[in-house]
Amino acid sequence: MPALHPAHATRHRRKSEKKVLRSRHKSIGQPPGSLIHIGEQKVEKTEITAIGYDEKQAVTLSVGNVEECLALKERFKVLWIDVAGLHETGVIEKIGELFGIDPLTLEDILHTGQRPKVEDFERYLYLTLQMLDFNQEHGEVGHEQLSVVVGPGWIITFQERPGDMFDPVRQRIDSPNAKLRKHEADFLAYTLVDAVVDHYFSTLEEIENRIDLLDADLVATFSQESFNALNALKRELIMFRKAVWPLREIIGSISRDDFAVVGDLVEHYFRDVYDHVILVIDTVEVFREIVTSMHETWLAGVNNRMNEIMKFLTMIATIFMPLSFIAGVYGMNFRNMPELNLWWGYYAVLGLMLLIVFGFLKYYRSRKWY
Amino acid sequence: MPALHPAHATRHRRKSEKKVLRSRHKSIGQPPGSLIHIGEQKVEKTEITAIGYDEKQAVTLSVGNVEECLALKERFKVLWIDVAGLHETGVIEKIGELFGIDPLTLEDILHTGQRPKVEDFERYLYLTLQMLDFNQEHGEVGHEQLSVVVGPGWIITFQERPGDMFDPVRQRIDSPNAKLRKHEADFLAYTLVDAVVDHYFSTLEEIENRIDLLDADLVATFSQESFNALNALKRELIMFRKAVWPLREIIGSISRDDFAVVGDLVEHYFRDVYDHVILVIDTVEVFREIVTSMHETWLAGVNNRMNEIMKFLTMIATIFMPLSFIAGVYGMNFRNMPELNLWWGYYAVLGLMLLIVFGFLKYYRSRKWY
Amino acid sequence: MPALHPAHATRHRRKSEKKVLRSRHKSIGQPPGSLIHIGEQKVEKTEITAIGYDEKQAVTLSVGNVEECLALKERFKVLWIDVAGLHETGVIEKIGELFGIDPLTLEDILHTGQRPKVEDFERYLYLTLQMLDFNQEHGEVGHEQLSVVVGPGWIITFQERPGDMFDPVRQRIDSPNAKLRKHEADFLAYTLVDAVVDHYFSTLEEIENRIDLLDADLVATFSQESFNALNALKRELIMFRKAVWPLREIIGSISRDDFAVVGDLVEHYFRDVYDHVILVIDTVEVFREIVTSMHETWLAGVNNRMNEIMKFLTMIATIFMPLSFIAGVYGMNFRNMPELNLWWGYYAVLGLMLLIVFGFLKYYRSRKWY
Amino acid sequence: MPALHPAHATRHRRKSEKKVLRSRHKSIGQPPGSLIHIGEQKVEKTEITAIGYDEKQAVTLSVGNVEECLALKERFKVLWIDVAGLHETGVIEKIGELFGIDPLTLEDILHTGQRPKVEDFERYLYLTLQMLDFNQEHGEVGHEQLSVVVGPGWIITFQERPGDMFDPVRQRIDSPNAKLRKHEADFLAYTLVDAVVDHYFSTLEEIENRIDLLDADLVATFSQESFNALNALKRELIMFRKAVWPLREIIGSISRDDFAVVGDLVEHYFRDVYDHVILVIDTVEVFREIVTSMHETWLAGVNNRMNEIMKFLTMIATIFMPLSFIAGVYGMNFRNMPELNLWWGYYAVLGLMLLIVFGFLKYYRSRKWY
Amino acid sequence: MPALHPAHATRHRRKSEKKVLRSRHKSIGQPPGSLIHIGEQKVEKTEITAIGYDEKQAVTLSVGNVEECLALKERFKVLWIDVAGLHETGVIEKIGELFGIDPLTLEDILHTGQRPKVEDFERYLYLTLQMLDFNQEHGEVGHEQLSVVVGPGWIITFQERPGDMFDPVRQRIDSPNAKLRKHEADFLAYTLVDAVVDHYFSTLEEIENRIDLLDADLVATFSQESFNALNALKRELIMFRKAVWPLREIIGSISRDDFAVVGDLVEHYFRDVYDHVILVIDTVEVFREIVTSMHETWLAGVNNRMNEIMKFLTMIATIFMPLSFIAGVYGMNFRNMPELNLWWGYYAVLGLMLLIVFGFLKYYRSRKWY
Ligand SMILES: [Mg+2]
Ligand SMILES: [Mg+2]
Ligand SMILES: [Mg+2]
Ligand SMILES: [Mg+2]
Ligand SMILES: [Mg+2]
Ligand SMILES: [Mg+2]
Ligand SMILES: [Mg+2]
Ligand SMILES: [Mg+2]
Ligand SMILES: [Mg+2]
Ligand SMILES: [Mg+2]
Ligand SMILES: [Mg+2]
Ligand SMILES: [Mg+2]
Ligand SMILES: [Mg+2]
Ligand SMILES: [Mg+2]
Ligand SMILES: [Mg+2]
Ligand SMILES: [Mg+2]
Ligand SMILES: [Mg+2]
Ligand SMILES: [Mg+2]
Ligand SMILES: [Mg+2]
Ligand SMILES: [Mg+2]
Ligand SMILES: [Mg+2]
Ligand SMILES: [Mg+2]
Ligand SMILES: [Mg+2]
Ligand SMILES: [Mg+2]
Ligand SMILES: [Mg+2]
Ligand SMILES: [Mg+2]
Ligand SMILES: [Mg+2]
Ligand SMILES: [Mg+2]
Ligand SMILES: [Mg+2]
Ligand SMILES: [Mg+2]
Ligand SMILES: [Mg+2]
Repeated sequence: MPALHPAHATRHRRKSEKKVLRSRHKSIGQPPGSLIHIGEQKVEKTEITAIGYDEKQAVTLSVGNVEECLALKERFKVLWIDVAGLHETGVIEKIGELFGIDPLTLEDILHTGQRPKVEDFERYLYLTLQMLDFNQEHGEVGHEQLSVVVGPGWIITFQERPGDMFDPVRQRIDSPNAKLRKHEADFLAYTLVDAVVDHYFSTLEEIENRIDLLDADLVATFSQESFNALNALKRELIMFRKAVWPLREIIGSISRDDFAVVGDLVEHYFRDVYDHVILVIDTVEVFREIVTSMHETWLAGVNNRMNEIMKFLTMIATIFMPLSFIAGVYGMNFRNMPELNLWWGYYAVLGLMLLIVFGFLKYYRSRKWY
Repeated sequence: MPALHPAHATRHRRKSEKKVLRSRHKSIGQPPGSLIHIGEQKVEKTEITAIGYDEKQAVTLSVGNVEECLALKERFKVLWIDVAGLHETGVIEKIGELFGIDPLTLEDILHTGQRPKVEDFERYLYLTLQMLDFNQEHGEVGHEQLSVVVGPGWIITFQERPGDMFDPVRQRIDSPNAKLRKHEADFLAYTLVDAVVDHYFSTLEEIENRIDLLDADLVATFSQESFNALNALKRELIMFRKAVWPLREIIGSISRDDFAVVGDLVEHYFRDVYDHVILVIDTVEVFREIVTSMHETWLAGVNNRMNEIMKFLTMIATIFMPLSFIAGVYGMNFRNMPELNLWWGYYAVLGLMLLIVFGFLKYYRSRKWY
Repeated sequence: MPALHPAHATRHRRKSEKKVLRSRHKSIGQPPGSLIHIGEQKVEKTEITAIGYDEKQAVTLSVGNVEECLALKERFKVLWIDVAGLHETGVIEKIGELFGIDPLTLEDILHTGQRPKVEDFERYLYLTLQMLDFNQEHGEVGHEQLSVVVGPGWIITFQERPGDMFDPVRQRIDSPNAKLRKHEADFLAYTLVDAVVDHYFSTLEEIENRIDLLDADLVATFSQESFNALNALKRELIMFRKAVWPLREIIGSISRDDFAVVGDLVEHYFRDVYDHVILVIDTVEVFREIVTSMHETWLAGVNNRMNEIMKFLTMIATIFMPLSFIAGVYGMNFRNMPELNLWWGYYAVLGLMLLIVFGFLKYYRSRKWY
Repeated sequence: MPALHPAHATRHRRKSEKKVLRSRHKSIGQPPGSLIHIGEQKVEKTEITAIGYDEKQAVTLSVGNVEECLALKERFKVLWIDVAGLHETGVIEKIGELFGIDPLTLEDILHTGQRPKVEDFERYLYLTLQMLDFNQEHGEVGHEQLSVVVGPGWIITFQERPGDMFDPVRQRIDSPNAKLRKHEADFLAYTLVDAVVDHYFSTLEEIENRIDLLDADLVATFSQESFNALNALKRELIMFRKAVWPLREIIGSISRDDFAVVGDLVEHYFRDVYDHVILVIDTVEVFREIVTSMHETWLAGVNNRMNEIMKFLTMIATIFMPLSFIAGVYGMNFRNMPELNLWWGYYAVLGLMLLIVFGFLKYYRSRKWY
Repeated sequence: MPALHPAHATRHRRKSEKKVLRSRHKSIGQPPGSLIHIGEQKVEKTEITAIGYDEKQAVTLSVGNVEECLALKERFKVLWIDVAGLHETGVIEKIGELFGIDPLTLEDILHTGQRPKVEDFERYLYLTLQMLDFNQEHGEVGHEQLSVVVGPGWIITFQERPGDMFDPVRQRIDSPNAKLRKHEADFLAYTLVDAVVDHYFSTLEEIENRIDLLDADLVATFSQESFNALNALKRELIMFRKAVWPLREIIGSISRDDFAVVGDLVEHYFRDVYDHVILVIDTVEVFREIVTSMHETWLAGVNNRMNEIMKFLTMIATIFMPLSFIAGVYGMNFRNMPELNLWWGYYAVLGLMLLIVFGFLKYYRSRKWY
């Protein structure tokens, strides 16, 4: 089981990768379409993979030289080029040239930390969204920008580093009689977006598991650590919501508006994705409300504990103060204190003290203090 | 009377059935319309019941083989097929084939935990909503997905398990001169939806009863348990709202838009359901606000109690500290302490102590501490 | 002056009449238009009063047999039938038949606790809203459903029990040259709605009086009772808002849309009512914000008091603990304690103690603790 | 400098003039257009001042008899009649007759405490808004209703009492080559509204000054009085917002819609006022957020103080309790206590005590308690 | 590293420059278009710089006499006049005359503290927005109003003082083959707005750095100072949001609506700025939520600390009170106390005391108090 309160979750929360904002210093005052990579370099070399398929065949190639892509484009009904790693801006620029992609689009691809959006350029559709993944060890949601450019017969995806949730899609492409192979590039775009959105559910499930762990932990300890872990989770939900909220509009727009490269059937499938997006957003809101109510439980528990502590202190103090006082009285050194000379005086005082103890105990019992 | 604070309500809150999200692992990366059941299997065998009726007759049959349904469709003006249990995907697929239902619709039927929605497929109308039920013992609202597919002359309902709120409807179908038998399938759809929505009121009444119980309990104890029970109820209301909120739009759309299979008269009746939906949503909001104000009462009460405890401690401590000090002074062993030799010294000190006690008591009375 | 904190206001808050929801058990699964009264029976016998008038005459009749109404309808330009008491569903049904009222409308009339709404049935307009009244003794707002059915030349009002805010209207009808007698039934409808809305202001004034009483009380006591009374008032405001909020849309719709039975002039008057409705809603919101700020004042006061109590305890305890310690030291029984034999030892110790007391007092004064 | 916490600000807050609602008892059930003054009489006699001007001349007259106004209307290009005092309803009615003002408008003029609104009656435009003024002594915003009726060539303003922010406007009218004299009545209307809105900025500046005073005071004292003054200010902001919020819509409507008596150029100027209204509303919202954050600061400070007090008590108590205990031990009267007879026993105990003191002090220092 | 809690940040927060409102006294009641500077004079003399360029040349001139500008306008394809300093209203008026700028626009330029807006005057476009800059030393965001007037072939910018974020733009103008030199004035306007918006990201990055610093500090100290610094930051975010929120609408409008002086290509570029504006607004909201959650952490920490303190006090007090009581008992002077004479009595009592200590310690350990 992962640690519930890793030190870094509460203290070193914001490694540069976890910043809300990616540093944009380099791009200030630059002309539009200046190709500068904003974000961390996350991979040593940009990896380009091309998958071409039609109903009869499907080929996967690791591309060394970008120019090869153009030839592939002719050979297959659908060509999917996947680019992992964004720091080699020359490569991105070259791809842009070959496929006629607008400089502003290329800039958006390179500026990670984009707000999700869709833009129609007639000859292609540009779509950017966030791939989210929950790291159970750190209790953090990882964000990786995915850019999808869909043209007639081709699709290019840009990721920040290799590794994604598209392996089942690749398997379907490889399987000879997959329905996927009968469709155009727009259907592949739908399939990829659907995989990203379906993965949000996995992420949310893992977040729900964490909520359950924290919920159990919270009630057991009421410690500052469990509060901090809760608060860290809350921030992850804030970032999650920021990443998915715009999809409502974006996917809705794809399924409604008449984009050139998206056919009617695929619009129909995007309506299904739209339902999922709404469900994701609803669920994030519910999680936020649950976390807020856990927060309130924590505060209530701390308040309650304080009450318990003070009750205990008050019981002990109020019982012993009168007793000590009586002992103090008979510890005085007055010459004339008749009680001191009675042979039963000591026993009488002890008896009085016992009476006082029982009196207080009865009183506290009547007030249900113990 | 059900237990107010069942242990599981606060500690083991989230059995898999109470998860906000149903596990969707199996469906990630699958092609659209892949018939995979998402949710728990809640019944051993799928039960299919067919009810056929027209003005003259009404027949209820338990269906063993799905193909029988097609024959029944011809025999009656209206055929209602009720399917309870969703894990036998083969059965669902077969029904889909026989009645020409889109794979995406079938997928939605199988993916429980859907957001309520309505979709018009021209030849049929697809509607999904949540049947809610309050479990007084656990203090929890049970959610069960109901899918309704309405075509010309037939209606198919899919539930997660047998048992529903439609028995009065079945009785009306059985009664020879019920108005219901004079109408088409769309009227039956209205009747079913109306029964589901009317049942929300029952659920809300039971929630209100629980609120009243908790309200009484809260003020009496101010315990952590009553707070937790309140918080658990709050979460149930969050889930309730999530389940009914989309109905506003859905039922409004049915009563307004021109769906092929819904006649004008039934639209008129759906407007009545619409009023009820709005009232349900308003009531949930009011309950949420009441629960929030109970939460505040709890916190205020705990704060107030702390005040009472501290007042009591302060009264006892401030009275006995000076007294013990005086006793301490005359317990000192200085050789030269003239007061000790006075025959009335002891009595004078006791008198002084009494004076101090009365002084403090008067002061506290003047500040209304007791 | 009414009691500020009646026991029932805080503890027995929810008599059946104060429930947010009226029990709807009886109506679940019933066909639409089933005439079942939902709500409490609040009067022994349904009372029907008919008022007929035109410019020349005005007659008030107590109606025994519903059929008489039809005859009256012919005799006067305007006929107003007021029905008080809803449990005799037969009577309501009969009226519905005579005046051609839709079963769904009759159902709405009988189902008290409706959300306010307006519905246009071409041959009549149906309007339902809540008559509100503040009960100073219980600190509660009473809700009574008023249904108004306006046809050409007639108007029927349905109330839950006799007694309303329409007496000034009845007086105006009786006065020979009242402008009211020159107008049609729609003007009477406007006059009745205006009276209901104007009465909201009275209710709000009484709520404001109560807020002022509670405000004074709050600051004086900071007791749990005053907090509870405040919270009870908050709930009344929640219910008040729920009752008036829909009127914004309803009255706006009457004054804007072209309903058959509402003339242009009366639309003009309804715009005036619309202004009042907005003012009522704004005022309720302001009251809610004021009550929230009183809530905060209470909490701040309790926190502050705790500070005062702890300051006092700390002052007493920190002064007497060192003193008692010093007395304790010289109460030790060591054989060799030179100070004990000095003739001025006792006085020196007393002096030291005085110094300590003044030192602490000066310190506390410097920190403004007293 | 004005008192920061005048007694009445917190305790007697709601003199009848400060009520949120003006008493409307008299108007309930009255026919529409009944001229009853709602609000307090604030001036002994209604004062009427007429100012007539055109490019060549400008005359200011105190009007004794309302009928005189009609004659003036003919003499000047623009006639501005200012009525201060609303209790003489006869006078208002007479003016209404002379200038053809609708009874509903007259009613609105007399019912002070109106929500701001604009109404177009073709032959005139009716506009009502609130003149606001900050009373530094009481820390309260004064509200006075201003009604403006603008016709072709004339303008009538109704105020609750004499005194307003229009003196600079009057001076501009008196100055021979003021641009104002070249324009029509609609420009004068704009000028008056602009003066009212500009005065909101003055009021807000004074509120900001008060916020600054309270901010300094708050941090210095954390007293209940400073909290109450803050809360009183919050209520003033609630009322301020209620008074200006509707202007957004109203001024926007004047500058956009085609009202008969407002020319294109003046619409252009009203767009400028519109900017100011938005800025006023934004500023009120910012002030509300600042006051809320001050509220949080107060609460945090009180909590922090409690911490300080408890730390101090704990330090003193935990140091002296062990010391007193040791003294108590050697104050016991057992016959056989060897330490008592050692000649260095007393000094050893004193040394032990010093060690304990230093131990605790070091511990507290290590925890940064002092 | 800058000081985290500069005294002025918490105590002298509101120097006149930090006021939410700029003093508008001078402008009340003035005719529209009165050129009065609202805001502080921030520079001794107004500095005017003219930059003219076309594809072949680029010239930068310091303008002494405003009239020179007109000549420059003829010489270049694009003329950019930058005016720094607004108190010399004569200069502003002169520029207005030369370029045909509406008096209301000039007024807006001079009234600093404007809400951002865009206004289309056909022959020119007027745009005002706030240049924001984070002062790490004071922890404050500096606001400076920028007004941009764009006509055909010319652009005039008005700032409150010299110094801005446009130096990279100036460098691009100076570089012979910059794309910028090929475009019209509208492209320069886009470039300037883009630079302002890009600079918001720098400001937000610095705010994020400060948030991180405060986050670390907060958890380490839980002091009132760190709370105050947090609250001060919250207010800066409130002001930041107020400054950027209107840009959503403004930039959206420029990129959508058909303003005369903005070409299609530049609209395309403004859509890119629009994305950035949305991202800025989203980020500000996320920062606000993070600051709120830090606030909650602070409060939770203070509550938790109080618990720790009280636990410690309770442990010490409850252990020593019984011990001191026992010592007190055997310090009593009764003649007949048999235990005192036992030779092992003293040791037995010490043993009993040890037992009590261990008993309590075990109990506290079992409750996890230490
Ligand atoms: Mg850019
Ligand atoms: Mg971009
Ligand atoms: Mg990747
Ligand atoms: Mg999906
Ligand atoms: Mg939102
Ligand atoms: Mg939302
Ligand atoms: Mg899917
Ligand atoms: Mg689906
Ligand atoms: Mg079922
Ligand atoms: Mg119903
Ligand atoms: Mg909502
Ligand atoms: Mg809502
Ligand atoms: Mg019904
Ligand atoms: Mg109904
Ligand atoms: Mg009644
Ligand atoms: Mg009215
Ligand atoms: Mg609302
Ligand atoms: Mg009115
Ligand atoms: Mg609202
Ligand atoms: Mg607290
Ligand atoms: Mg009225
Ligand atoms: Mg006045
Ligand atoms: Mg103005
Ligand atoms: Mg609002
Ligand atoms: Mg708002
Ligand atoms: Mg102005
Ligand atoms: Mg302006
Ligand atoms: Mg500058
Ligand atoms: Mg930019
Ligand atoms: Mg807003
Ligand atoms: Mg917002």
